[in-house]
Amino acid sequence: MKVGFVGLGHMGSAMAANLLKAGYEVAVYNRTPSKAQALVRQGARFAEKVADACKNREAVITMLPDDAAAEVVVFGGDGVLGSLRKGAVHVSSSTISVALSEKLAKAHAEKGQRYVAAPVMGRPDAAAAARLWIIAAGAPDAVDTCLPLLEALGQKVFRFGDNPADANTVKLCTNFLITAIIESLGEALALIGKAGLDRHQYVEFLTSSLFSAPIFKTYGAIIAAQQFEPAGFAAPLGLKDNRLVLAAAENLRVPLPLANLIHDRFMTLLAQGGESLDWSAISTLPAQDSGLGKTVPQ
Amino acid sequence: MKVGFVGLGHMGSAMAANLLKAGYEVAVYNRTPSKAQALVRQGARFAEKVADACKNREAVITMLPDDAAAEVVVFGGDGVLGSLRKGAVHVSSSTISVALSEKLAKAHAEKGQRYVAAPVMGRPDAAAAARLWIIAAGAPDAVDTCLPLLEALGQKVFRFGDNPADANTVKLCTNFLITAIIESLGEALALIGKAGLDRHQYVEFLTSSLFSAPIFKTYGAIIAAQQFEPAGFAAPLGLKDNRLVLAAAENLRVPLPLANLIHDRFMTLLAQGGESLDWSAISTLPAQDSGLGKTVPQ
Amino acid sequence: MKVGFVGLGHMGSAMAANLLKAGYEVAVYNRTPSKAQALVRQGARFAEKVADACKNREAVITMLPDDAAAEVVVFGGDGVLGSLRKGAVHVSSSTISVALSEKLAKAHAEKGQRYVAAPVMGRPDAAAAARLWIIAAGAPDAVDTCLPLLEALGQKVFRFGDNPADANTVKLCTNFLITAIIESLGEALALIGKAGLDRHQYVEFLTSSLFSAPIFKTYGAIIAAQQFEPAGFAAPLGLKDNRLVLAAAENLRVPLPLANLIHDRFMTLLAQGGESLDWSAISTLPAQDSGLGKTVPQ
Amino acid sequence: MKVGFVGLGHMGSAMAANLLKAGYEVAVYNRTPSKAQALVRQGARFAEKVADACKNREAVITMLPDDAAAEVVVFGGDGVLGSLRKGAVHVSSSTISVALSEKLAKAHAEKGQRYVAAPVMGRPDAAAAARLWIIAAGAPDAVDTCLPLLEALGQKVFRFGDNPADANTVKLCTNFLITAIIESLGEALALIGKAGLDRHQYVEFLTSSLFSAPIFKTYGAIIAAQQFEPAGFAAPLGLKDNRLVLAAAENLRVPLPLANLIHDRFMTLLAQGGESLDWSAISTLPAQDSGLGKTVPQ
Repeated sequence: MKVGFVGLGHMGSAMAANLLKAGYEVAVYNRTPSKAQALVRQGARFAEKVADACKNREAVITMLPDDAAAEVVVFGGDGVLGSLRKGAVHVSSSTISVALSEKLAKAHAEKGQRYVAAPVMGRPDAAAAARLWIIAAGAPDAVDTCLPLLEALGQKVFRFGDNPADANTVKLCTNFLITAIIESLGEALALIGKAGLDRHQYVEFLTSSLFSAPIFKTYGAIIAAQQFEPAGFAAPLGLKDNRLVLAAAENLRVPLPLANLIHDRFMTLLAQGGESLDWSAISTLPAQDSGLGKTVPQ
Repeated sequence: MKVGFVGLGHMGSAMAANLLKAGYEVAVYNRTPSKAQALVRQGARFAEKVADACKNREAVITMLPDDAAAEVVVFGGDGVLGSLRKGAVHVSSSTISVALSEKLAKAHAEKGQRYVAAPVMGRPDAAAAARLWIIAAGAPDAVDTCLPLLEALGQKVFRFGDNPADANTVKLCTNFLITAIIESLGEALALIGKAGLDRHQYVEFLTSSLFSAPIFKTYGAIIAAQQFEPAGFAAPLGLKDNRLVLAAAENLRVPLPLANLIHDRFMTLLAQGGESLDWSAISTLPAQDSGLGKTVPQ
Repeated sequence: MKVGFVGLGHMGSAMAANLLKAGYEVAVYNRTPSKAQALVRQGARFAEKVADACKNREAVITMLPDDAAAEVVVFGGDGVLGSLRKGAVHVSSSTISVALSEKLAKAHAEKGQRYVAAPVMGRPDAAAAARLWIIAAGAPDAVDTCLPLLEALGQKVFRFGDNPADANTVKLCTNFLITAIIESLGEALALIGKAGLDRHQYVEFLTSSLFSAPIFKTYGAIIAAQQFEPAGFAAPLGLKDNRLVLAAAENLRVPLPLANLIHDRFMTLLAQGGESLDWSAISTLPAQDSGLGKTVPQ
Repeated sequence: MKVGFVGLGHMGSAMAANLLKAGYEVAVYNRTPSKAQALVRQGARFAEKVADACKNREAVITMLPDDAAAEVVVFGGDGVLGSLRKGAVHVSSSTISVALSEKLAKAHAEKGQRYVAAPVMGRPDAAAAARLWIIAAGAPDAVDTCLPLLEALGQKVFRFGDNPADANTVKLCTNFLITAIIESLGEALALIGKAGLDRHQYVEFLTSSLFSAPIFKTYGAIIAAQQFEPAGFAAPLGLKDNRLVLAAAENLRVPLPLANLIHDRFMTLLAQGGESLDWSAISTLPAQDSGLGKTVPQ
C-alpha cells in the first residue's frame, strides 16, 4: 500500500517512521523540508509538495499542529483535496476542531474521496514506540481500508462510528480530561506543599493506589519534579486544544466551567512567559497563588 | 492483641469483621447497638459504652462519620480520652478535619496516650475485601504498634511521617482528586452526550487507554450507568469532605477553585433533593445545565 | 451634512430618527427594507443598497448586530468600503470585535477614508430619547467631523484617543461590567429569596442606598419583577458580547474568570430555551440551582 | 434615653460620637480602654466592664469585628446578656453571622430582653458624617424604641421585618455585591490596562455614565489609584464577611460561584502578604495574573 504522510513534527516523524518499519511505501512532506531527511534515510520518498505526497497514493495521513495548518494543506493550491485520487482516503490525525473536521468530510465527499478522522493519544515517546491509542471515525469501508496503517502506529484503535467529526469530539474531551487531572494535581499539591508534606511522596502514593493509570503516572512524575522543559506538548498547543473543546461545547450549548478554569490557567501561564513549557506547567499556578513562590522558570 | 472498635457503619462493620477474621479480640461499640449484633455473632465482644471498647485495650479504632461524632466519642463522658489506658493507641480512621486531628493529637499526648491518624481509601466493597488503602501518620512507635491491625484491614499501608494530622490532609486531598474526576467526567459526558455519542462507549474507551486506574473504572461505570442508588458514599458526606478540604486550604491560605466548583455542585444537588444519592451524582449536573434534562431521580 | 445610516433594528431606527429630528439629511438602509418605512415617513431617503447610503455622503453610521453583518456591509459588493468617497467618515456604532475594528481601520485607511468607532451604551428607550452614552475613538479630525452627529444621538460623548479599536475595548469591558452586576444580583437574590425575604424590597433598598446608579435601577427592576420579555437586549446578543470580550482578553492573555462564569450562564440559559429572553434572564439561574424552581418562561 | 455602646473601633467610635452629639447619655466600653478616652472627653461615661455599659440602660449598641468578639461580649461573664435589664434593647450593629444573630435573638428572648439587628453600610468617613445606611430588623416595638438612635447614626434606616437575622442576611448579601463590583472592576481594568488604555479615564467614564452610584465612585477611585493603605476595611475583614455569606448560603443550599471566586481572591491576596491592605486590593490580582506585574505593595 502506497501512502503519503504530511506533517513531520515530533509526533508525525515518529509515526511515519513506524509506517516505514511496517513495510509501507511512504512519501513524506513537511513545510520545512529538512525535517524529512531522517525519514528519507530510512527509506521514505521525499515529496516536494503536498500534492506529491497524495498523487497515486491509496491513503494520505496528515498530522498538523492546528486548524490553520490543516486548512492550508487540504484546501491550498497543490493541496490534498486537489491531488488525491477518487476513492483514496485522507486520514486526519491532527487535533483539529470539530467544525473543520465536518468541513473536511463534506469537501472530500464532494470530490469522491474518502475521509477518516483518526486523532491519536500519547506523547512523542509513545508515538515512537508505536504505543499510541487511536480514535477513528468515518465510513466503515474507509476505516477498514486504513485500519492496518493505524494498527502500525499504535497499540489499539478505537472505532467511534461513521461520523468522522465524532472522533475529534472524543479526542478533545479526552485532552480536556487530561488538563482536569493536571489542574486537580496542581491544586492538591499546592495544599500538600503548603502543609509541609513531600510532593513526590504524595504522587508516589497516588499512583500506587487508586490513581494507578498511565495518565497519573506520566503527569504525576512531571509535576512533582517540575520538569516542564523540554515540552512534550507545549503550553500554546494546550491552549489551542482547550479553545477547541470550548468551541465544540459552545456550539452545542454545553457549559464547561472546569474547562474555563483551565483556560484561565493557560492565559496566566502564557502571560507570565511560559510559552516554551509543557502544558502541565499550569499545575504550578495554584502553588503560586498560595504564596509558595514562582516555580515556573522564566 | 485486644482492640476496641467504635463506629459500625458500612465501613466500620466491614473493618471490624476483618479484625475478627485476623484473630484479634475485638470489643465493638456503636451508638445504635443493633448494628453490633452481626459482629457479636462473629465473635466480637459487645461494648455498651465507648469506655467498654477502650478499657484495658492496647488499641481502639474509631470510624465515625464526621467531626461532631468524633468529638462526642473522644471527649464525651465515658469517652476514649477518659477511658483509654496510658500508652494505648487511639487509631482514628474517620475522615475528619485537619484541625480536629491536631486537637486529638494534643489531647491524647496530655493523657499519656498515643494517637495515630489512619484514614482509609476505598468504598464499602473494598473494606469488606480488606482491600483498603490506608494512610497512616503518627509517632513511629505508635504506628509500628498498630501496623498489624492496619495490615489486616487493607492491601497497603502508606506512612506519612510523624504528624498525625498530615494523614488527614493527604486523605482530604485525595478525596478532592476523586471529586475532580467526577466533575471532569460529568462535563466531558455532557458534551459527549449532547454530541450524540454513546456515553458507555466513551467511558469504556477511557478506561481501556490512558485512564485505566481503579478510580476511573469505579466512577466511570457508575456515572455512565447513572446508578447513584444505593449510595456507596452519600452526597452529604461528599459535601462534608469538600468542606473539610476547603477549611484546611483556607487555614493555609490556599485557593482551590476547582474544589469551590465542586462545592457548588453539591449545593445544587442537595438543593434539588439528592440527599440519598451517591456523591458521584454531581456528575449529572453539567448535562442538566446543557438542557439534556434532569437525570437525577427525585 | 448628508449622512447615511445602515442597520435599522431597535437601536438603529431610534438613532436614525434622532438624526432626522436634528435636521440631518439621512439616507437609510436595512437588509429587510420594510423596517425603513417609518423613517422614510419621517423624511429619510430610502437606500436600496448599502452603496446608496454611502455615495456622496460625508459620513455613514453603521449599527449592526454582529461581526458577520458588519463584514458583509463593509466588505461586501456595493458595500461601505467600495462606495464611500475619499475623506468621508465611517462611524461604526455596532458592538463588534476589537479585531474587526482593527481590520476596518486598516481597510478604510488604505482607501483614503476615515474611520471612527463609536459604540453606544443604553437600551432602546435611551436611544429613542437621545440619552445614549457614546464611546468614540479615532483620528481627532475624524471624531471632530462626526461629533455633532454623535451629540444628536446621546447625552454625552466620551473620547478615548485615536485608536478606533480602543472604543470597542471600552464598550466590551462595560458590557462585561453590566453582566457582572446581573450575575451578582442573581446570586444575591437567590440567597435573599431562599431566606424568605422579599426580592423587591431588597432591590429597592439597594437602589436607594449605595447602589443608586442607573444600571442598578434598570436591571434591579427587571430582575426583581422577572420581566424578561420583550427583550431589550436579547440573550444571544449578550452571549455574543461575552464572547467578544473573552476574545479580546484572550488575544492579550488576560484571564477573566467572572466573564467565563457569565459565559456558562448564557450557555445554560440558551440550552434551556431562553433564546428570546432579555440577557438579564441569566440572573434566574442561581435561584434555579438553589432549588427555587425554574423561573424562566419556556 | 440612656444608652451603652460597646466596641470603639474606627466605626464604633464615630457612631458613639454621633450619639453624644445628638444628646444621648452614652456609656462607652472597649476592650482596650484607651480608645474610650476621646469619647469621654466629648462627654461619654467610661464603662470599665461590658456590664457597666448595660446596667440601667434602655439600649446598648454593640459594634464588634466578628462573631468571636460578639460572643464574648454577649455571653461572657459580666456580658450583655447577664446585665441588661428586662425590656431593654440590644442593638447589634456588628457584621456577624446569620447563625449567631439567630442565637442572640433566642438568648435575649429567654431573658425577657429585646434584640434588634441593625448592621450598617458605609466606611469610617460615612460613619463620622452620620451618613451610614442602616439595615434594621426585629420586633416592631423594639425597632421603634431604638429608631431615634439609629437615625442619629445614619442618613436612612431600612426596616426589614421582624426577624432580626434577616438584617444580617441583607448586610452580607450587600457586602457580597460590593466585592462583586471590586472583582469585576479588577478584571475590566486588567483588560483596559493591558490594551494600553488609561485606567483613570476608564473609571471616570464609568462613574459619569451608567455606573454613577456611590459604590462605583468610592471603589473606582481607590482601585484606579491603587490606594489600598490605610485600609478603610481591611482584607481579613473582607475575607470574614465573604466566609459569612458563604456560610449563610451553604446553610440554605445556595451555590454562589462568584462569592467563591472572591474567596479565592482573598486567599491569594493574604497568601501574598496583603493583610494590612484594603479589601479592594483583590482588584489587583487579575492584572497580576495577566502579567502586568505585582501591584500590591508588600
